[in-house]
Amino acid sequence: MNSEERTHYCGELNRQNLNEEVCLLGWVRRKRDLGSLIFVDLRDRKGIVQLVFSQERNPEEYALAKKLRSEFVIGVKGRVLSRGEKDRNPYLPTGEIEVLVHKIEISSESDTPPFPVEDDAIINEELKLEYRYLDLRRPLQNKRIQERHKLLQLVRNHLSEEGFIEIETPFLTRSTPEGARDFLVPSRLRAGEFYALPQSPQLFKQLCMVAGFDKYFQIVRCFRDEDLRADRQPEFTQIDIEMSFPTEEIIMKMAERLLEKIFKEFSFEATFPVPKISYREAMEKYGTDKPDLRFGIEIKTISEIVKDCSFGVFRSALEKGEVIRAIAAPSQFTVSRKEHSNLEEIVKPFGAKGVIVISRVDGKPSGSPVKHIGEGLADKILNFLEVEERGSALIIAAPYSIACASLSSLRLYIGRKLKLCETSKNSLLWVHRFPAFEWSMEESRWVSCHHPFTMIREEDIPLLEKKPEEVEALAYDIVLNGFEIGGGSIRIHRENLQRKIFKVLGFTEEEAIQKFGFLLKAFKYGTPPHGGIAFGLDRLAMILMGCESIRDVIPFPKTTSGLCLMTSSPSEVDPGQLKELKLKIEKERN
Amino acid sequence: MNSEERTHYCGELNRQNLNEEVCLLGWVRRKRDLGSLIFVDLRDRKGIVQLVFSQERNPEEYALAKKLRSEFVIGVKGRVLSRGEKDRNPYLPTGEIEVLVHKIEISSESDTPPFPVEDDAIINEELKLEYRYLDLRRPLQNKRIQERHKLLQLVRNHLSEEGFIEIETPFLTRSTPEGARDFLVPSRLRAGEFYALPQSPQLFKQLCMVAGFDKYFQIVRCFRDEDLRADRQPEFTQIDIEMSFPTEEIIMKMAERLLEKIFKEFSFEATFPVPKISYREAMEKYGTDKPDLRFGIEIKTISEIVKDCSFGVFRSALEKGEVIRAIAAPSQFTVSRKEHSNLEEIVKPFGAKGVIVISRVDGKPSGSPVKHIGEGLADKILNFLEVEERGSALIIAAPYSIACASLSSLRLYIGRKLKLCETSKNSLLWVHRFPAFEWSMEESRWVSCHHPFTMIREEDIPLLEKKPEEVEALAYDIVLNGFEIGGGSIRIHRENLQRKIFKVLGFTEEEAIQKFGFLLKAFKYGTPPHGGIAFGLDRLAMILMGCESIRDVIPFPKTTSGLCLMTSSPSEVDPGQLKELKLKIEKERN
Repeated sequence: MNSEERTHYCGELNRQNLNEEVCLLGWVRRKRDLGSLIFVDLRDRKGIVQLVFSQERNPEEYALAKKLRSEFVIGVKGRVLSRGEKDRNPYLPTGEIEVLVHKIEISSESDTPPFPVEDDAIINEELKLEYRYLDLRRPLQNKRIQERHKLLQLVRNHLSEEGFIEIETPFLTRSTPEGARDFLVPSRLRAGEFYALPQSPQLFKQLCMVAGFDKYFQIVRCFRDEDLRADRQPEFTQIDIEMSFPTEEIIMKMAERLLEKIFKEFSFEATFPVPKISYREAMEKYGTDKPDLRFGIEIKTISEIVKDCSFGVFRSALEKGEVIRAIAAPSQFTVSRKEHSNLEEIVKPFGAKGVIVISRVDGKPSGSPVKHIGEGLADKILNFLEVEERGSALIIAAPYSIACASLSSLRLYIGRKLKLCETSKNSLLWVHRFPAFEWSMEESRWVSCHHPFTMIREEDIPLLEKKPEEVEALAYDIVLNGFEIGGGSIRIHRENLQRKIFKVLGFTEEEAIQKFGFLLKAFKYGTPPHGGIAFGLDRLAMILMGCESIRDVIPFPKTTSGLCLMTSSPSEVDPGQLKELKLKIEKERN
Repeated sequence: MNSEERTHYCGELNRQNLNEEVCLLGWVRRKRDLGSLIFVDLRDRKGIVQLVFSQERNPEEYALAKKLRSEFVIGVKGRVLSRGEKDRNPYLPTGEIEVLVHKIEISSESDTPPFPVEDDAIINEELKLEYRYLDLRRPLQNKRIQERHKLLQLVRNHLSEEGFIEIETPFLTRSTPEGARDFLVPSRLRAGEFYALPQSPQLFKQLCMVAGFDKYFQIVRCFRDEDLRADRQPEFTQIDIEMSFPTEEIIMKMAERLLEKIFKEFSFEATFPVPKISYREAMEKYGTDKPDLRFGIEIKTISEIVKDCSFGVFRSALEKGEVIRAIAAPSQFTVSRKEHSNLEEIVKPFGAKGVIVISRVDGKPSGSPVKHIGEGLADKILNFLEVEERGSALIIAAPYSIACASLSSLRLYIGRKLKLCETSKNSLLWVHRFPAFEWSMEESRWVSCHHPFTMIREEDIPLLEKKPEEVEALAYDIVLNGFEIGGGSIRIHRENLQRKIFKVLGFTEEEAIQKFGFLLKAFKYGTPPHGGIAFGLDRLAMILMGCESIRDVIPFPKTTSGLCLMTSSPSEVDPGQLKELKLKIEKERN
């Protein structure tokens, strides 16, 4: 039986089809042999339906059904019948009916799969990736890829309707050694030279603006050869959008229209318009530039309050120019000795020395630090932080950035532990007014916080030479439930300003020309002001579908160390291939 | 002025907008200074409109307009006025109106561009690629990329409506040394190992079928590291479609529905349903598997007619088992001595020794071969070929494949020279029933004509071992005006048959497992019958838009030697990057 004969997908059948002759194609989910009747659950990408084979009525088909095992591929023809009252399955959309089969063809047999093809199967992650094609056959996992398809079309159609043009940019392009590490592609026709896979189509989309396209988009694969952390992939998909003559506000509104459309389609609730917060305020209140605002617990600085305290930890920190900052943990969060040591484990990786905990018990400050600080001051701190009865102040004394990172993590830990996120609404937030540059200790130079093509505030241009740390970028991120799902900036479109920025970043004139000469050249021929935004499609899909990992929404993901366990790549290649590329693998020196 | 203030694109204005206040953003196409009035043509991606600056009415704006030069980026506000009767431009959609400017902002200046940004500019190809962003600003070229966008959305929406799911397959994948040469991507985390960029998502789309997706598509970049011929690109875009439970007929109908939709949208005329021809018949009648059927001129074999002729050329060919084949050139095609030598130049590269020409003049055979062949036989040949008065028989004596290639080229040469294609309808054609294997002299083994995953006719399976040359593949190409625009096949879905095919291709069991073990493994777990088709998007777009080269429809194309002249890639990379990859460039040995 072929796809033209198929009348329905399994999941589409219901009481409305009673007595219809149907033809179905799918996989045997399971078989129950009840003697003269055999029941088979048939699965395809739209659902599951029960087939019945009757020894009495269709002995030949019954005999074939005897042979069926899980994951056999079959085609059947039969009649839709109502199930008896007591045989109905209220958990299955097709649970009121079954199909009495009078014709069956076995298209393909199957060995016993390495794991059950069921949603509730608990499967080792590596096995899942090795047999991804079976993992993807599981209904929920299959559905996710179908939903991703829906998302892709939705985005493209929405942007097309808004007048954006999809323009395909090259994958074999030039290595631009700024930002993350490039994947290289050796050229054979010019042995010794390399293409690079794009980390993003940044320069090409800017050149699209120079070319007069005015509104560009692309859903595009990007590549970063990073030391992979959990939930990073060496290749990932980006919704890439750029437009001419924008303002930050125009781009934000455009992005919000897109998100609002997506969220509506995926029944994902969030409030529009999206509030904005400056980078500085985000750090001040939440210690991070991607705060999860589904719950409160704001950070407060108490340096001023404790400035005369003789407690050594506070004193030495303040003397070094560090800060004392704190959050108020609610009463449901009990800081036992064990919990305290958990908290200290959380902040250690950031460089904080410890967490000072003062609780309020029976209205009074409690905990070992109280005797060093004094009850009066401790009470003042609790009051300032508005710590409730049985709640606690968690205090960090450290350099500003360490205090921020530590308290942000403590905040999230409490939020998760108390499940503060689950009952509340999704939280969307713009973070903007980022600093343009940060000092890289490693490279002993200023580096761009966003990227070197980011426009800065017009009024900050005079600060470029003397105070780059004070220059603000026209860059913005959009944060959903504490995940950065998108970010962008207004770009530089003037050659002389771009040159100045390169200078701040420590490039000589020659280096700037060698690396980005083609962009500087393009800027000479009538470049419109432009800017844009890019969304991480994988992460967005993950959140929309309530998944734990981006691997769940990527059809064929790699491991965190960049391996494809299904095809065993990367792999060794034929020496002849390397010879053609004039490349040699260097032996490890022992 | 920003994009939110813009009220119209330039090309959208006409008499209906008379007296409206408008805001436009665009590029100065040219300026004419008429003393107290300055006229400026303003261009954006939707067209051109005339601006007027009046010294009398808006002296400040007039003064700024004085400074304008070609390709300056400006924003203007003004009022739409009717042009005087004699000033109307009937060649411009906006030619009845002009915009009297009362506010102007110069966003960006421009150096004199290296070539005029005009459709009719004649530009050196290399300069065009180096300044692609200016080339793309030319209205016709800009339009092509916008039309390509339309094509992309049309295809995705059509396929989505037909229930196909877009599934993104990996770019960093496994090298499969069958088919063309792979581009390799060195892995850093596993130095010495490589990913390969996909030549097509062949195996992944098959695995999508194993995963139960049933109908897959993707508009996807593919990569082939070939010695580039004219009009080939190292990266190209493919419309990739695969489905489960198909027949050849089902896939052809699905493909025709897609093409019919596209053609309709692009006002490109062709007849559906599309006729089918077998590979053998195509070779027999047109000498090629991608015949241009916009004109006739079929090849005929005259071996039988001339078998007793004593003419040395015929005799020696027939003795060697070669064939004598011919076409009839129409009367408009005069074979002068010079033309005859052109014809011989055409066939030489294929290995043919020459072209025997017999014309019919005043009803009689004419030309030097007549004396060798004899007038009677020459007349018989002319009659058999139905050569008209003043027409000619062009005869080739050669091995079958050389005769085919030669006559196919002669046929196309005549068609082009006489412009037989231009007046007639576009011709779509399916070519199918290809041989599965051909003998590779180079590799001394059978190779797949399509690819090793192509299903063969069920009844030919017994021929696999003894007579692979007789085995027919379930493969098909679709040909438009002599260009192969798409092709596909039914795939093998049974592990044992796939193993047999690998054996025919000369792989040992070990090699088969090493190279394609993951596919063979997947086939063990319930693989549905499946097949598909892929269209070359670049070529399709090229034909739809009547372009000469695929470079015209690719936003950022490379040269035929794989260079990006705009960004100068490939390029040398930092030695540190190679060190991290543990790679060394081998010096050329002199």
